[in-house]
Amino acid sequence: MKMNEALSIKIDACFSPHLYPVYKDQESIVVIIDILRATSAICTAFEHGAHKVIPVATVAEARDYKEKGFKVGAERDGIMVDGFDFGNSPFSYMGDQVKDQTIVITTTNGTQAVEAAKEAYKVVIGSFINITALCDWLIAEKRPVLLLCSGWKNKFNLEDALFAGAVTEALTQKTEQFKCGDACLALKYLYQMAKQDPVKFLKHSSHKERLAKLNLKKDIKYCLTPDLSSIIPVLENGALVRLPVKSYLESAS
Amino acid sequence: MKMNEALSIKIDACFSPHLYPVYKDQESIVVIIDILRATSAICTAFEHGAHKVIPVATVAEARDYKEKGFKVGAERDGIMVDGFDFGNSPFSYMGDQVKDQTIVITTTNGTQAVEAAKEAYKVVIGSFINITALCDWLIAEKRPVLLLCSGWKNKFNLEDALFAGAVTEALTQKTEQFKCGDACLALKYLYQMAKQDPVKFLKHSSHKERLAKLNLKKDIKYCLTPDLSSIIPVLENGALVRLPVKSYLESAS
Repeated sequence: MKMNEALSIKIDACFSPHLYPVYKDQESIVVIIDILRATSAICTAFEHGAHKVIPVATVAEARDYKEKGFKVGAERDGIMVDGFDFGNSPFSYMGDQVKDQTIVITTTNGTQAVEAAKEAYKVVIGSFINITALCDWLIAEKRPVLLLCSGWKNKFNLEDALFAGAVTEALTQKTEQFKCGDACLALKYLYQMAKQDPVKFLKHSSHKERLAKLNLKKDIKYCLTPDLSSIIPVLENGALVRLPVKSYLESAS
Repeated sequence: MKMNEALSIKIDACFSPHLYPVYKDQESIVVIIDILRATSAICTAFEHGAHKVIPVATVAEARDYKEKGFKVGAERDGIMVDGFDFGNSPFSYMGDQVKDQTIVITTTNGTQAVEAAKEAYKVVIGSFINITALCDWLIAEKRPVLLLCSGWKNKFNLEDALFAGAVTEALTQKTEQFKCGDACLALKYLYQMAKQDPVKFLKHSSHKERLAKLNLKKDIKYCLTPDLSSIIPVLENGALVRLPVKSYLESAS
């Protein structure tokens, strides 16, 4: 590979859905990241057999789906909204209640990020749960990548940044084709400091403190566990579905 | 000091003027950061005797001032705009052309950040040039601090993040009164990795590459030099002036 072919594909990170308009382009694959807990929960639902996950931005939209008979998850400020079937704990998205089901979900941050990026070339869901499958696919696609961190109410958060750093490290270690934007350069360093013990690294973070109050230590540990799934959820016509295995294998070959 | 008094003052960082509305409050001192090169140039102007610096957001406003006879700096995309007195190289803001003068300045990023935050409780200018004076004053003020990185065209950049990390480290090392938001936690780690050799650390950053093309290595080295000045520029009635020494000494005592 010539030098001008190497380092030719951009990977960058955006720390808030509110900043997405500044970063958006027509070319990039956008990876939605909401580690605690929406994107971890969505990946879990697919691993446990969910047919489709419809992300919606508002509780009102979620309620409309609930009235139509759908299974609906709704979370605000870390807590399940009354009258719905799930919050956003990944442990809710397991077993018979998700298997072969179409599930609707709205969360404080993650589904807002999906909404912001819905017009992108391609929108996929990332979490530690599916990180290796996601990274292998991103490398095979040979497209610019934008890691869109959901954050907390449009502010930067540490756990989404950590995951974006992990993806950046994986992509730049496995191939020389990616050129990091400044945010990814910073995140790669951050991940290198954190990777020996991510749970400890996050112990001072705002969101972990928030979740600890809600007694969700088990969720946090689960959400930081890599490679429980090899499914990549992708947005198609407003709903998340599994990225077809055929397309994945073809592009990886 | 009791534990609930310790860690009671928030320090956070915002990576883009576009995100400022998400972070703003009525209480925080906002530190404007544009290391390469606007805030470094402004601190340099005051150290070299400038009387006042009027930041304006647009080239049109800058031109109005020029027509009224002011000395005016105007930079876009790293280059001095034709017809003005300065670009944003700190080396332009030295000597007789700044001494005792009122200077008007507009830049791609830094003066946009001042414009975004102009209604804040207090707006001050930060750079490595005045870092220790700034940090000592922030500690004495006992107020929440928001480090507003100008970035590059509203995107995250590495050198502003590095400086915000340096301020966070200084503030949290010298006193236990500050509690870091997630962005400052991340930046503190970043700075700890970079501080042995910040010039080397920045060598892959987007903006450094951009400036290297413009043959500005001397500017970069200068802008990363700490404590060339102990003056803190503060925004008052739309213009930057020196923070009065009396007020500074009183609050520090």
